[in-house]
Amino acid sequence: MSERTVETRDRYFHFLPIQTRWNDNDAYGHVNNMVFYGYFDSVVSGFLVSHGGLDTAKAPVIGVVVESMCRYHHPISFPEVIDAGLRVGRLGRSSVRYEIGIFRQGSDKAAADGHFVHVFVDRETMRPAGIPETIRAALAPLAY
Amino acid sequence: MSERTVETRDRYFHFLPIQTRWNDNDAYGHVNNMVFYGYFDSVVSGFLVSHGGLDTAKAPVIGVVVESMCRYHHPISFPEVIDAGLRVGRLGRSSVRYEIGIFRQGSDKAAADGHFVHVFVDRETMRPAGIPETIRAALAPLAY
Amino acid sequence: MSERTVETRDRYFHFLPIQTRWNDNDAYGHVNNMVFYGYFDSVVSGFLVSHGGLDTAKAPVIGVVVESMCRYHHPISFPEVIDAGLRVGRLGRSSVRYEIGIFRQGSDKAAADGHFVHVFVDRETMRPAGIPETIRAALAPLAY
Amino acid sequence: MSERTVETRDRYFHFLPIQTRWNDNDAYGHVNNMVFYGYFDSVVSGFLVSHGGLDTAKAPVIGVVVESMCRYHHPISFPEVIDAGLRVGRLGRSSVRYEIGIFRQGSDKAAADGHFVHVFVDRETMRPAGIPETIRAALAPLAY
Repeated sequence: MSERTVETRDRYFHFLPIQTRWNDNDAYGHVNNMVFYGYFDSVVSGFLVSHGGLDTAKAPVIGVVVESMCRYHHPISFPEVIDAGLRVGRLGRSSVRYEIGIFRQGSDKAAADGHFVHVFVDRETMRPAGIPETIRAALAPLAY
Repeated sequence: MSERTVETRDRYFHFLPIQTRWNDNDAYGHVNNMVFYGYFDSVVSGFLVSHGGLDTAKAPVIGVVVESMCRYHHPISFPEVIDAGLRVGRLGRSSVRYEIGIFRQGSDKAAADGHFVHVFVDRETMRPAGIPETIRAALAPLAY
Repeated sequence: MSERTVETRDRYFHFLPIQTRWNDNDAYGHVNNMVFYGYFDSVVSGFLVSHGGLDTAKAPVIGVVVESMCRYHHPISFPEVIDAGLRVGRLGRSSVRYEIGIFRQGSDKAAADGHFVHVFVDRETMRPAGIPETIRAALAPLAY
Repeated sequence: MSERTVETRDRYFHFLPIQTRWNDNDAYGHVNNMVFYGYFDSVVSGFLVSHGGLDTAKAPVIGVVVESMCRYHHPISFPEVIDAGLRVGRLGRSSVRYEIGIFRQGSDKAAADGHFVHVFVDRETMRPAGIPETIRAALAPLAY
């Protein structure tokens, strides 16, 4: 994998520190690949709640994930604390591409990086809806 | 997302039925995006154990995930049982690309599909190693 | 632990087979202690949906867990399939004590057994409410 | 539940702050009951690694959970950060009872409290072994 580009801290604009957990490690003793997507979800949803005014219990329009991807560069293990970095790759009418980097504390090179795409939908009908304005306003400064 | 190709059951060669769990559903009431990667891991690792003779506790050579991807076409929810289908996309000297489809029971179109890449490494040094022969022999018939 | 009583299959009245998952195993190579509570939740909530008519998305009265306990007798590991057995220990006006046993296939002695207590509450106010009649009718035959 | 005793912060001697995650919330919008045991595991195993010199990959003697229990007093929800407090209830020859409280930040009353019991065993034979001395020395000051 040595020829792959690896993302760096300076390319992300919002960070959430996350304590790894004992059960994040799988039988091989490192954080399992699926758990990184839990970090992705948490930095994004946390930002939408804290900066975008999202009320996950009642919002009539919610984001559903239609695609996700991650590249793993360096193993991490409990009990490390990691930083999840966020930027916005594309901010469309009803969809957003979030790009995320996972960093070990003290390291500027990503242990893993990836993205996922939210399509905003009406919670009842599951049909595409425009991105709510408070969310769009929060996300715009994270675009690059 | 309507223009995307969606995988079908006939393009996978090994299946694992998986009971969804209450906690697979997230606050929006559907199986969370990260959980699909747990289904991916389970059909692959289950196959490596049952057909490839992998002893996850003692094997000197293990597969580590360097990349994973999933596209989500249709929500699924607890208490459904899903089928995880597996085929092999590329079988290299030390790496394998697994391609997985997640199917609702009674449906031939994938609710989600994706892939992940294992690089086989020496468990102690984490340096690339050849794919063990029993594993290669088990995976070869799943290639297309 | 050899002197502890261990539950047996014949003392449970409803069963859900559950495929273990790769990520259920922790760094010690066995299903992690917390995961058993995920099996508990799944056999109970699955029964409430399939037999008690619970609509988890819209039900105005839901069960919240106020206490849970588990005793672990024998390790289990992915890729085993386990059976989660359910009975009802106490069926009150607004609370239920569910008792659960986790069995390896082919074994009549529990690998683990425990219980949890649901208090049924109004979903909006979180104040105790009577157990809905369809749920009570479904649970009554599981009492012993 | 109003008559139950509820633990307080001053009765715990070591704390780990833990960022909740999006997927900790279940379909009812609160942290799922099983997730609390993941917090329990993390404060204990983190302490054993950081203060007791435990090497989870190579230690010949490891702790296995034989019993766990939790009482839930107040719901918590993502994106809160919680503090997991730890004390030692009983420090035997080969077993330890850990007592844990989960606190919302700014609150001195436990949102949940419980315990689990580790029996230390030989990793290969799974037979009881004495608690390693470095671990015993680390745990002793947490006893009450």
